[in-house]
Amino acid sequence: MSFLSELRRTASDVVTDPQVLTGYSFDQMPLGTAGTPLALVRAGSVAEVSAVLALASAHRVPVVTRGAGSGLAGGANAVDGGIVLSVAGMDAILSIDEGLRTATVQCGVLGGDLAVAVAERGLWYPPDPASKAFSTIGGNIATNAGGGCCLKYGVTGDHVAALTAVLASGEVIRTGGRQRKNVAGLDLTRLLVGSEGTLAVIVEATLRLRAAPLPPATLVAFFGTVQDAAEAVDAIEARGEPSLLELMDRTTVGAVERATRMGLDTDAGALLIVQTDEPDPAAALRSYAEACAKATDLAHTTDPAEGEQFLAARRQALPALERLGSTLLDDVAVPRTALAEMITEIQVIAERYAVTIGTFGHAGDGNLHPTIVFTPDTEAAARAAFVDIVHAALTLGGTITGEHGVGTLKTPYLTAMVGPVERALMGRIKEAFDPAGVLNPGKAL
Amino acid sequence: MSFLSELRRTASDVVTDPQVLTGYSFDQMPLGTAGTPLALVRAGSVAEVSAVLALASAHRVPVVTRGAGSGLAGGANAVDGGIVLSVAGMDAILSIDEGLRTATVQCGVLGGDLAVAVAERGLWYPPDPASKAFSTIGGNIATNAGGGCCLKYGVTGDHVAALTAVLASGEVIRTGGRQRKNVAGLDLTRLLVGSEGTLAVIVEATLRLRAAPLPPATLVAFFGTVQDAAEAVDAIEARGEPSLLELMDRTTVGAVERATRMGLDTDAGALLIVQTDEPDPAAALRSYAEACAKATDLAHTTDPAEGEQFLAARRQALPALERLGSTLLDDVAVPRTALAEMITEIQVIAERYAVTIGTFGHAGDGNLHPTIVFTPDTEAAARAAFVDIVHAALTLGGTITGEHGVGTLKTPYLTAMVGPVERALMGRIKEAFDPAGVLNPGKAL
Ligand SMILES: Cc1cc2nc3c(=O)[nH]c(=O)nc-3n(C[C@H](O)[C@H](O)[C@H](O)COP(=O)(O)OP(=O)(O)OC[C@H]3O[C@@H](n4cnc5c(N)ncnc54)[C@H](O)[C@@H]3O)c2cc1C
Ligand SMILES: Cc1cc2nc3c(=O)[nH]c(=O)nc-3n(C[C@H](O)[C@H](O)[C@H](O)COP(=O)(O)OP(=O)(O)OC[C@H]3O[C@@H](n4cnc5c(N)ncnc54)[C@H](O)[C@@H]3O)c2cc1C
Repeated sequence: MSFLSELRRTASDVVTDPQVLTGYSFDQMPLGTAGTPLALVRAGSVAEVSAVLALASAHRVPVVTRGAGSGLAGGANAVDGGIVLSVAGMDAILSIDEGLRTATVQCGVLGGDLAVAVAERGLWYPPDPASKAFSTIGGNIATNAGGGCCLKYGVTGDHVAALTAVLASGEVIRTGGRQRKNVAGLDLTRLLVGSEGTLAVIVEATLRLRAAPLPPATLVAFFGTVQDAAEAVDAIEARGEPSLLELMDRTTVGAVERATRMGLDTDAGALLIVQTDEPDPAAALRSYAEACAKATDLAHTTDPAEGEQFLAARRQALPALERLGSTLLDDVAVPRTALAEMITEIQVIAERYAVTIGTFGHAGDGNLHPTIVFTPDTEAAARAAFVDIVHAALTLGGTITGEHGVGTLKTPYLTAMVGPVERALMGRIKEAFDPAGVLNPGKAL
Repeated sequence: MSFLSELRRTASDVVTDPQVLTGYSFDQMPLGTAGTPLALVRAGSVAEVSAVLALASAHRVPVVTRGAGSGLAGGANAVDGGIVLSVAGMDAILSIDEGLRTATVQCGVLGGDLAVAVAERGLWYPPDPASKAFSTIGGNIATNAGGGCCLKYGVTGDHVAALTAVLASGEVIRTGGRQRKNVAGLDLTRLLVGSEGTLAVIVEATLRLRAAPLPPATLVAFFGTVQDAAEAVDAIEARGEPSLLELMDRTTVGAVERATRMGLDTDAGALLIVQTDEPDPAAALRSYAEACAKATDLAHTTDPAEGEQFLAARRQALPALERLGSTLLDDVAVPRTALAEMITEIQVIAERYAVTIGTFGHAGDGNLHPTIVFTPDTEAAARAAFVDIVHAALTLGGTITGEHGVGTLKTPYLTAMVGPVERALMGRIKEAFDPAGVLNPGKAL
């Protein structure tokens, strides 16, 4: 019997229509390449995932696990002759425990849907990638997704209490637990977090929730230079625990102003947006305003709706830059105290290759999204600038990826980032999970 | 050349005096057994650790890494014919970065010494095992040590940004980084946290610090029954973020009162001690007092010195129980909502075996230390009670160890805890780090 016939006996929803397959072959990374998959399997249950993986391992057929396909690093891109295993349909919220403040969900649940379900009980699931509304919890865990409020509340991995996952062999493992503390054995939960589909397929997760935070108060400040803004970032963090601390550089501010005409100061070198949910918002805003000593213009509000308007500029950053041409979105992170240096270096790189680069991001934790704008003519320059940005982050003691993952996009830089001995070790750990090497081969590790 | 002569050429401080070796063969676990080691090596540098491990791997000689030897699970106990590798002498604080709020230390630095060094700069390293003054940061990381303030601020692992570690091969790896966000490759940092010397020798760590918290306000409440106290624990956690939430049962309260005559109500079924460092301490105390609706007696103070006196009762729990006989200290954790059930079950077990068991612990995160008091005559009963307690925790969806580790003490229960497939997987991960199997063989995994 051919592999495909066996696959059809194993899974109920197997698709080989090339047009459908193409739709499942790419994530949201621009400039990506993807292989031509053999088949798409839309899994409906843990048992089905298990059976498909066991079969794939036996036949050494690659399996690319796919959530919503909203990734920005090509992690979910198809590989030649492989299966695309979509787990997006496994999307039940299994239970919410109000006493323990946990939710147990299938991997395909969208972050936005979980947010609504827990909010109905006065609870809150903090991780807030900008893609929350349309990305899956499984994908968020597999990439250890970040977002604005990570600064205060931690990244996705900090909210994962327990996982159910399927190994390449088809065996089902359970990691972690509902108790808050546990030191029995190795921390498999944290190992699966951020593993980008290379170790196992995450099928269920128990997530930690919090009480809903107080409504945010918001401050916006313009600065003459990136250095002044970066100084303010350090000063703000020394004064309290902002729940959001975002930065946009001059190029990004200009693009947003052109797109929206919201009245931003396009002469400014940088813009900071700060939010706080601390108990005395007025006092916190006063203190943060003082920290912005060199601001050329500053506004703040304790009204959440008005604050949301202030945040609109930041939310428009990527769409506004996208209006200028094709975009290549990078995701580097540096120690926060190297923030100004990193942004300045990006500006030097933009001049070197005569490309437009708008930089914005989660300044509070040094995580930047330099976004290179290019046309077909300048694509080579854009790619060269991208490489230089990644190396600049490494030189400043930072990372090649703060939250989007390595995927296919960043594999060339992984050894420079983690070191050859460490990369070899990661390879051996991968083998411990997936001896046949079928899970997302060539990606992430 | 004999292995020992080679070892002497490799390391400068090699000891074979049996009496010295005995002193380095046990940790603080009572009832422990340990093997007879071949030699003690007191390492002075990363290079020396590396050379010793390479030699040991080549000769397949076991290596037990030892910090302060304050462990309570036998993790640092010697094994027959092996090396005890003491890293306690590598105790330099290498740097403190006030801007980024990180400290980089060698593994042998004592937690208490680090606390003093960072406090001089207005900073704070939260993890607070009761053994902080005399245990090493390396040991704290290797066991993922907990403590009172984990409830609000997280366990040791939550404060580790980067590690330098030596593999069994002698290769040196660096994990993590100084930037706050990083998703490049697998999370080796978290894998080393809690690995109890089985994967690598941790030689350096970069730790995250915080601004010093506000001075604590403290509340003590007595309850007629454990159930009433557990209800109050749930109610308190629903109302805010206490920085400490400890419980003592009737037996423990009685033992402390007998030892100290501090005037505790020995009729009470349980005692809670709550601390808060929230910005409005008076309001927080009022709210927590309301949460203790069924308290039979209650006192609170915003004076930190007086609060420290309230806490004295909790600090005396173990010493007071130790006055009653030999003690076997357990360390289970259950989902917080199963707290009352767990304590009741422990009381049933105490009656079953006619032994005294005093239970106290970190109620806020469901982590309990049932302490079995025994004499030479009742040692068998104590061991039987211990086994039943561990199984009771498992039955309630908890863990066999919340913070002390598996060591040699809990290996018999690990498969029941994590599952056979998971345990086999952990074994394969261990092989990826330590193919010769020399690092702490037979322990933890
Ligand atoms: C407009 C936009 C905004 C974004 N904003 C953010 C942001 O703020 N922060 C951020 O971190 N990211 C952001 N992203 C990137 C992306 O949304 C996240 O990486 C998200 O976590 C991916 O989830 P997904 O369900 O789409 O996963 P996919 O893209 O389908 O997959 C991502 C990776 O995870 C693996 N994977 C998916 N599901 C599973 C599973 N169940 N088990 C094992 N492996 C699995 C895949 O194999 C792949 O390697 C953004 C993307 C877009 C398009
Ligand atoms: C009175 C008392 C109170 C305690 N209170 C607490 C508490 O509140 N919370 C808590 O969690 N624990 C507590 N403990 C237990 C113990 O102090 C902790 O486990 C501590 O983290 C051990 O540190 P250590 O330096 O003594 O390590 P050791 O006992 O020497 O070793 C512990 C384990 O870690 C390994 N190890 C040590 N150093 C390294 C290294 N550099 N690299 C790799 N592996 C290493 C060892 O091989 C062993 O497996 C207490 C102990 C005592 C005696």
